[in-house]
Amino acid sequence: MSHTVELLSVGTELLLGNIANTDAQMLSQGLSALGLNVYYHTVVGDNPQRAREAVAIAKKRADIIITTGGLGPTCDDLTKNVLADAFGKKLVFHEASAERIRSFFDRIGRTMTDNNLQQAMLPEGCTVLDNDWGTAPGCAFEAEGVHVIMLPGPPSECRPMFYERAVPYLARFSEGVIASHTLKLFGIGESSMEAQLREQMNVMSNPTLAPYAKEGECELRVTAKAATMEQAQALLLPAVEQLKQHFGPLVYGVDVASMEQVVFTELKEKGLTLGTAESCTGGLVAKRFTDLPGSSQVFKGGIVAYTNEIKEKLLGVSPAVLAEKSAVSPEVALAMAEGARKLLGCDIALATTGVAGPEKDDRGHEIGTMFVAIATPEGSHVRPLTLGNRPMRQRQRTNTAHNAFDLARRYLTGLPYENH
Amino acid sequence: MSHTVELLSVGTELLLGNIANTDAQMLSQGLSALGLNVYYHTVVGDNPQRAREAVAIAKKRADIIITTGGLGPTCDDLTKNVLADAFGKKLVFHEASAERIRSFFDRIGRTMTDNNLQQAMLPEGCTVLDNDWGTAPGCAFEAEGVHVIMLPGPPSECRPMFYERAVPYLARFSEGVIASHTLKLFGIGESSMEAQLREQMNVMSNPTLAPYAKEGECELRVTAKAATMEQAQALLLPAVEQLKQHFGPLVYGVDVASMEQVVFTELKEKGLTLGTAESCTGGLVAKRFTDLPGSSQVFKGGIVAYTNEIKEKLLGVSPAVLAEKSAVSPEVALAMAEGARKLLGCDIALATTGVAGPEKDDRGHEIGTMFVAIATPEGSHVRPLTLGNRPMRQRQRTNTAHNAFDLARRYLTGLPYENH
Repeated sequence: MSHTVELLSVGTELLLGNIANTDAQMLSQGLSALGLNVYYHTVVGDNPQRAREAVAIAKKRADIIITTGGLGPTCDDLTKNVLADAFGKKLVFHEASAERIRSFFDRIGRTMTDNNLQQAMLPEGCTVLDNDWGTAPGCAFEAEGVHVIMLPGPPSECRPMFYERAVPYLARFSEGVIASHTLKLFGIGESSMEAQLREQMNVMSNPTLAPYAKEGECELRVTAKAATMEQAQALLLPAVEQLKQHFGPLVYGVDVASMEQVVFTELKEKGLTLGTAESCTGGLVAKRFTDLPGSSQVFKGGIVAYTNEIKEKLLGVSPAVLAEKSAVSPEVALAMAEGARKLLGCDIALATTGVAGPEKDDRGHEIGTMFVAIATPEGSHVRPLTLGNRPMRQRQRTNTAHNAFDLARRYLTGLPYENH
Repeated sequence: MSHTVELLSVGTELLLGNIANTDAQMLSQGLSALGLNVYYHTVVGDNPQRAREAVAIAKKRADIIITTGGLGPTCDDLTKNVLADAFGKKLVFHEASAERIRSFFDRIGRTMTDNNLQQAMLPEGCTVLDNDWGTAPGCAFEAEGVHVIMLPGPPSECRPMFYERAVPYLARFSEGVIASHTLKLFGIGESSMEAQLREQMNVMSNPTLAPYAKEGECELRVTAKAATMEQAQALLLPAVEQLKQHFGPLVYGVDVASMEQVVFTELKEKGLTLGTAESCTGGLVAKRFTDLPGSSQVFKGGIVAYTNEIKEKLLGVSPAVLAEKSAVSPEVALAMAEGARKLLGCDIALATTGVAGPEKDDRGHEIGTMFVAIATPEGSHVRPLTLGNRPMRQRQRTNTAHNAFDLARRYLTGLPYENH
């Protein structure tokens, strides 16, 4: 039998937007991994009437209700009262929990107020979920064919309470495992990727395919459900292989964090070093690469050459080329990469130049006219980009940096620089 | 009349926990500021049946339904189909939107597939909310006493679509105005700021004070409600003045986006130029500054000097000082700033050096040992930082960059570099 979970979060702070519902995200991830289907998230405020109505709806459409929040003294233990009531249960005093609450306050050296002891009132006959990370205990019970699990709201309590207390309770419902792999693609739009896969997606049921677009990159998540991890992997691997074949060099990795991570791993393996020369990206390429822990093993440094003066003086770009071709040209991108390679003494240098906006440059180049170049021991290559002339500075810069890393990962993995 | 809003987010990725529902948080904040009550958030997956049921429930309990997500071609435009259906409306082809979608693809130089044009199918008689940040248009309509507003899911589209398109539509429901100003502080922790304001916060009702912590910076939002904008501002301004007095040089701006924005504005006004020399921040300072549109007017360039070799060769840091004091020292930070000022020919240079982790450096400096320096026509200054030796690379780097910009804005606004 397949189980349906509803997450019910109680807290006015969520409805005011003071916090994002990260508990729901964390629980959803954990429940998916258990093979349980989460069909609804509901958020209500600290309002008994609306909470009661939300519980009445959840009872009808889910057989596992997991609540977060509303267990503390500041909200009159709203969640416990409403849920106990909805299932015709009384709250009874739980001495062991009261003792835990008292000793918690002793440990942190605070005075316990009476309303803290309210937290030891729990639905009769429930399974108490001890809270080692805060004061409010959680609880679980079954009634009218529905399982109810209540967890505290603060993420620092909710997460361990879920993984240490709720997951063992939920193990009984879990049928097999869910596993997934994520292919990362660069150089194809989401809708084009999806158009190529639509037929396949419609007929596939296990594994399933889910496309995502993410700041100029695409992801394709392949998910399988099976009795064991081995069986899930056996379903996944042929599908992953087939997709890798289909998309070829557009796939830059499987289960990898980013293109720069792939570049980093390849550089380390091959004992090569990297440097950068950036105009339009203004340090973004270097910044992204040095975001990676350990990047100092392979990264030598970079030049942010925002003026022609610096392009000439530091990177040795010829004043004649700058004058004739302008800074936004394939010639200058190549000269920047080659100049950086010499200046920084690195094996591979990446360069960017272009017009990120907000306006055309003084030579009349449109916003979005960009060139990325790579210089290597085996020669150089430049890629012209047309990113569209809308003033979307961040997107222009992000996409240009993506393309620079794409040149590096293609060089390092022996792929052609361009698809055609 | 008081209005009740329900947010309905459509997306299986939310139920799988791939992403947190940050759209709901953003919308909740914005709606609260308009004086509208958000009573429910509901999340459903890309499932027509369950989406229909969720809409049926929302219709009964809310008079404004705002949906996010499910507008793109990959989900068969689920949201539009379900909402139009629930209110007995047909989807009709909207030629102007189709034209916008075509020209979007032209601009970004991608081929449009047929399924993209599906996005131009919109509920008959709706108000089209043009999307300047992506392809899927939003829309709004009123039917059966309920207002429906549909917004795209990607946060980079949802936020501007809400503020630029939905808020003007929603203005009709807002009673009076809500206005706020945000003080930005650097160099004080949120809890310390809050402790200093606690008494005041407890007695204030209009305007109200709300503190936020944000990646090493603090914000203090002062919000007032009144019949007119003039009255709201009359309530706000004395409170803002008083807070500026109280926190002194810790306040780096009111209603400004960032410290680098303040630095940029000051540089422009004074006709001065900036350059950078970065070790531990690896390009982050340059990247953040060049994120600002128009920064090329004042930014000359930067050096990412990740190795001692480059610190010596390009920035002229003395090998003797590097050997004696090591790269992580106040002497080297100063020499980098002064070297960059000469090399780049800029008026002000900022430098960073330190150990961002993941490990101690080879001279045994703990993670979090950082130095930021500034070189100016009037001399140099170095600030040692102790950011705590936990391996939180991004936080270390962000905070170091904040401190570099703090030196610049203090220099440019005539404040002492340090508080004591």
